[in-house]
Amino acid sequence: MAGNSFGDVFKIHTFGESHGKGIGVVIDGCPSGVKIDESFMLDELTRRRPGQSRVTTQRQETDEFEIQSGVFEGVTTGTPISIYIKNKDQKSKDYTHIANTFRPSHADMTYNIKYGVRDYRGGGRSSARETAARVAAGAIAKLLLKQSNITIEAGVTQVGNIKVNSSIEQLDFTKSEENIIRCPDPIKAKEMEELIMDIKNKGDTIGGIVACRINNCPGGLGDPVFDKLHADLGKAMLSINAVKGFDYGSGFDSVAMLGSEHNDAWISEGDHPKTKTNFSGGIQGGISNGMPIYFKVAFKPVATIMRDQESLDKEGQMVIVKGKGRHDPCVVPRAVPIVEAMAALVIADHLLKQKSYSRN
Amino acid sequence: MAGNSFGDVFKIHTFGESHGKGIGVVIDGCPSGVKIDESFMLDELTRRRPGQSRVTTQRQETDEFEIQSGVFEGVTTGTPISIYIKNKDQKSKDYTHIANTFRPSHADMTYNIKYGVRDYRGGGRSSARETAARVAAGAIAKLLLKQSNITIEAGVTQVGNIKVNSSIEQLDFTKSEENIIRCPDPIKAKEMEELIMDIKNKGDTIGGIVACRINNCPGGLGDPVFDKLHADLGKAMLSINAVKGFDYGSGFDSVAMLGSEHNDAWISEGDHPKTKTNFSGGIQGGISNGMPIYFKVAFKPVATIMRDQESLDKEGQMVIVKGKGRHDPCVVPRAVPIVEAMAALVIADHLLKQKSYSRN
Amino acid sequence: MAGNSFGDVFKIHTFGESHGKGIGVVIDGCPSGVKIDESFMLDELTRRRPGQSRVTTQRQETDEFEIQSGVFEGVTTGTPISIYIKNKDQKSKDYTHIANTFRPSHADMTYNIKYGVRDYRGGGRSSARETAARVAAGAIAKLLLKQSNITIEAGVTQVGNIKVNSSIEQLDFTKSEENIIRCPDPIKAKEMEELIMDIKNKGDTIGGIVACRINNCPGGLGDPVFDKLHADLGKAMLSINAVKGFDYGSGFDSVAMLGSEHNDAWISEGDHPKTKTNFSGGIQGGISNGMPIYFKVAFKPVATIMRDQESLDKEGQMVIVKGKGRHDPCVVPRAVPIVEAMAALVIADHLLKQKSYSRN
Amino acid sequence: MAGNSFGDVFKIHTFGESHGKGIGVVIDGCPSGVKIDESFMLDELTRRRPGQSRVTTQRQETDEFEIQSGVFEGVTTGTPISIYIKNKDQKSKDYTHIANTFRPSHADMTYNIKYGVRDYRGGGRSSARETAARVAAGAIAKLLLKQSNITIEAGVTQVGNIKVNSSIEQLDFTKSEENIIRCPDPIKAKEMEELIMDIKNKGDTIGGIVACRINNCPGGLGDPVFDKLHADLGKAMLSINAVKGFDYGSGFDSVAMLGSEHNDAWISEGDHPKTKTNFSGGIQGGISNGMPIYFKVAFKPVATIMRDQESLDKEGQMVIVKGKGRHDPCVVPRAVPIVEAMAALVIADHLLKQKSYSRN
Repeated sequence: MAGNSFGDVFKIHTFGESHGKGIGVVIDGCPSGVKIDESFMLDELTRRRPGQSRVTTQRQETDEFEIQSGVFEGVTTGTPISIYIKNKDQKSKDYTHIANTFRPSHADMTYNIKYGVRDYRGGGRSSARETAARVAAGAIAKLLLKQSNITIEAGVTQVGNIKVNSSIEQLDFTKSEENIIRCPDPIKAKEMEELIMDIKNKGDTIGGIVACRINNCPGGLGDPVFDKLHADLGKAMLSINAVKGFDYGSGFDSVAMLGSEHNDAWISEGDHPKTKTNFSGGIQGGISNGMPIYFKVAFKPVATIMRDQESLDKEGQMVIVKGKGRHDPCVVPRAVPIVEAMAALVIADHLLKQKSYSRN
Repeated sequence: MAGNSFGDVFKIHTFGESHGKGIGVVIDGCPSGVKIDESFMLDELTRRRPGQSRVTTQRQETDEFEIQSGVFEGVTTGTPISIYIKNKDQKSKDYTHIANTFRPSHADMTYNIKYGVRDYRGGGRSSARETAARVAAGAIAKLLLKQSNITIEAGVTQVGNIKVNSSIEQLDFTKSEENIIRCPDPIKAKEMEELIMDIKNKGDTIGGIVACRINNCPGGLGDPVFDKLHADLGKAMLSINAVKGFDYGSGFDSVAMLGSEHNDAWISEGDHPKTKTNFSGGIQGGISNGMPIYFKVAFKPVATIMRDQESLDKEGQMVIVKGKGRHDPCVVPRAVPIVEAMAALVIADHLLKQKSYSRN
Repeated sequence: MAGNSFGDVFKIHTFGESHGKGIGVVIDGCPSGVKIDESFMLDELTRRRPGQSRVTTQRQETDEFEIQSGVFEGVTTGTPISIYIKNKDQKSKDYTHIANTFRPSHADMTYNIKYGVRDYRGGGRSSARETAARVAAGAIAKLLLKQSNITIEAGVTQVGNIKVNSSIEQLDFTKSEENIIRCPDPIKAKEMEELIMDIKNKGDTIGGIVACRINNCPGGLGDPVFDKLHADLGKAMLSINAVKGFDYGSGFDSVAMLGSEHNDAWISEGDHPKTKTNFSGGIQGGISNGMPIYFKVAFKPVATIMRDQESLDKEGQMVIVKGKGRHDPCVVPRAVPIVEAMAALVIADHLLKQKSYSRN
Repeated sequence: MAGNSFGDVFKIHTFGESHGKGIGVVIDGCPSGVKIDESFMLDELTRRRPGQSRVTTQRQETDEFEIQSGVFEGVTTGTPISIYIKNKDQKSKDYTHIANTFRPSHADMTYNIKYGVRDYRGGGRSSARETAARVAAGAIAKLLLKQSNITIEAGVTQVGNIKVNSSIEQLDFTKSEENIIRCPDPIKAKEMEELIMDIKNKGDTIGGIVACRINNCPGGLGDPVFDKLHADLGKAMLSINAVKGFDYGSGFDSVAMLGSEHNDAWISEGDHPKTKTNFSGGIQGGISNGMPIYFKVAFKPVATIMRDQESLDKEGQMVIVKGKGRHDPCVVPRAVPIVEAMAALVIADHLLKQKSYSRN
């Protein structure tokens, strides 16, 4: 209830501050018998890690993790899986300047209002470092989904005003990993990289969009009314730092469409019924229909910029703040694995839930 | 867990099918001592009701409700409040044609995959009639919020390609109730009305956008990490029938903005700190900062159209389906009170949650 | 969270006051395809009903219920099942004398402390009338369990100092329904009946014990650590009005036993492993082991007695209160179906949960 | 939902196996501003620790814990508090003999049925080592309760047939810590010690009772219907390893009492209303009434005995098992701090919940 847990059956609890001793996650509800591939988990964490390319922050963090429970002889036992990642690169001194200052468009002020006290070092609990715990848990969820042949792919489709034009259904996301932007279109990737470098050199930041597709999701996942599959995906994405918007299928574009254009006709083809078009984005009435699920996530420009900005201190006095240290000029390249992880957690949760409710 | 409950502390449970005996909601966790204004509740339900104008369905439903528990001598007692709305206009015969047929872009097929059986009459549980229960519960939430001077306003800002240009922060939503579109801009309202009537006459439907603003929300609401205030608002909105997208504050537009433009500087003005701009939409790090909260909700065109469409029946055979009866050509005018109700439920829930966590 | 819901997957939400418009329950999470037998449901409610024999209250209530949703053509659809029971025998005038008075060992004072306001008529929400909703929901749970051949039986094994001597494992509970005490031992039943009538004639009340056995429960139900199967059964029973204690298997008697006596040896016999003795009560480490589950529930003497008692009014002044109306001299005969209902809800919930976690 | 979490607002999530890397707990929902006293936490863990006296197991474990998050400059920040205790004394070889064998009255067989795989070393997740995490979390809960002057005391009141005669309300629990049995009556303590040593020398074990009293609990805690305060206390206690029964106030003894004896008359005395007697155990209608809360918890004899016992192996063949290593002859002396910890968790949770529901 305090906001650090996610999911109903495949459920995670995260903890930890950016510059405390470490961060971690406890996964509860993972079925027994899932083979744990630690090198895959490390790969996933590496995709999220700072310092991986010139368009990301040069801050170095290691994401060496330890599985402390729930896995025995390489296999999950059905008991809680605790994963812990020690903090190493804790330059706490860097942050004394913000102990009494509220940075613009950060969580400094709101944490102060809510809690009265806060661990101000590096943003504390509000730091994006928290997302490493999500990626670690998402890796386990992906291993579970693999048993059902469900895969999740994502990539950057927009930075500033540079957009990939193809529909998300058609994108070849395997190409995303071939460039440092994680954009499935190599030509646009190059343009995006140039834009980001230019903005970075000016001490500024820029926003972007991550698109995601879930393949081979069986029909019947998602619960009617409040826990619609896309509502849970939306909440998952909106919970990621810096996210400002979410849409799925035809999304915001559907607003200007006619019903006669937008309706997806059912056709008989192969084993399962399919739809001719897929404006529904694989979800109808909140329940998956067996078609690919796809959605978009909008990220704002990073709040930490290398420029002077007016703000307030604890006494309500005007102060000038300026970003220090090493920060991302654009968050989307590193956000790709986070989006995938959150999608994996939602689908794993609904997959297990559906077993409870099925009649067999 | 089965998807029919919403909220943590101020929690609702809804039930009922479009053409069953009735629909209803049980509200659990409403504090004692809230004065219940039944005529206000009826007004809210009337705003959602079909048959209210020529741009909505002409289907007649009465929304006469009965409070069955939890209120004694006009005041809430702290025990569950059950509100029941009997179904009256149950023309079940209208729906026999869909008993064995899956309409395009409806929930017919997905319910069938999920449950094996379904109450096909009028969409059953997936019908938008279910939202009457949300509006009834939302009315109680609004009465609770009124005690803290928090108000919620919404209106239609786009139908098809016709858009209101002003920012949501500046809109005078009191004007929304003066036209049948519920658009705060009377000139745009007229254009929208013409567009909808034109599309209706062609047997087609069109999408639209509802914008919402929450005024006087205190700082400190929302929980870090997964239950960010905007993530809960997003889930709430995405759970409404026909919604395809959600964004808040600068939303999808933030993608093309620079950090230096987007950051909201803190300024000292009056009792509470304020921000010079409000691209954050009143929420930072998932927690309200005391500024107005605002967001947009995208609705797709209604799936029921008065035209022949190809689809499948239960045996997988191609059939022609055509909408019958009386349906909305555009859902947004009636969606306004639903958006407000869901927003009220989210804020009421977080307001009560915050009392648990506060140190005093 | 406000205490009116029970269960995780097979989840119920109850509402209603003793002398309000009615009481009811919404069942969420019942799988689709369960055949609903309304006459069985009525039988169960009749077993709980006041006025059924001379050892129970002579108050007349009808338990005519209406299923308002979730059932279509006699079968559950997987959507919420709302069951409503109108109140009829509402002699509200009977209760004006307690509007300002706190009866000894009732919930009058504690509701007043907690909520500030209360529906004092007939105990309002704290009345045992609330248990009718449990029995209605429990009947649905029993219908679900029947699909897995799981049965639940209970009976009265003690009233005052009169005890049935046989072990709960050996009792023939089918005999419970043959006498008005619902005691499986007909000779003890007669003694108990005489004792209760004697106490009733003196305007007093007496306590008792209900024992319960769950047959054919598969192994593997129950969750380790906090949601042990017996912990959930214990909470379920302790939540029933007037219950003061719970034990299972060897229970409180185990305190004086040696480990060498108490351990249940595993033996190979038939398809499944069995234990030679069953002091474990069918549960080990919180998880069912396939043996019969059995437990005891202690009920205090009913608080309403037909005698003068000292107490306080709202102004803190001493007053004399005396029970009015028609009340049970001993609660256990009518508690039997309530105990069974709560047991059915717990087992149904864990049966569905286990499907989520199983590897297949 | 998988059974490793406890509480609603003050919520804990535990993890870890007896012979894995370590065990731990994440506390979510603790308000900010609670001063953390690590030496008090260590004292509490030391009271639970094996090897503390001749009546407990001689197994050595250290309970050195690390707070990994949620505390900054000695004070809670409102974010999750993760506490980790590394395992040290891991003689895994001791347990290879039970890898394929199901010990009588242990959780070996039921874990196998439920999960198919299990960490058999030292009982894995079902080991009582798990309770160290509860005690650590309970210590934080006690620090929170201290702010409201609420204290929790417990002691051993029965071992085998040796009983303390005084009522729980009158016991001076400060004396419990003066003897190794943790019995508030020093004379009975001596007898109990002799009995336990005698049984230990015979390689056998014996059960016992722990009684607990909660002082200064304000009225109004506990939720009506399902989450009655005593129902939550009961579930908490029944979730502790080896517990077979729970009763509160007059408990099982109430069965043979008359209503006229059992009712607690309200009297005016001092600031708050009080009851003349306290058979209610401080709880009426599931809600605390301001009087002392007291209850009893029954523990069975420990299952591991130093004697040959018949059992089955994985192939269903009969085998002889015999306890190895160092085990408790009687669990109650070490159970005292665990009972207190679980009580503290329940009261802390309801204290915070009540803030949400209160009208102010």
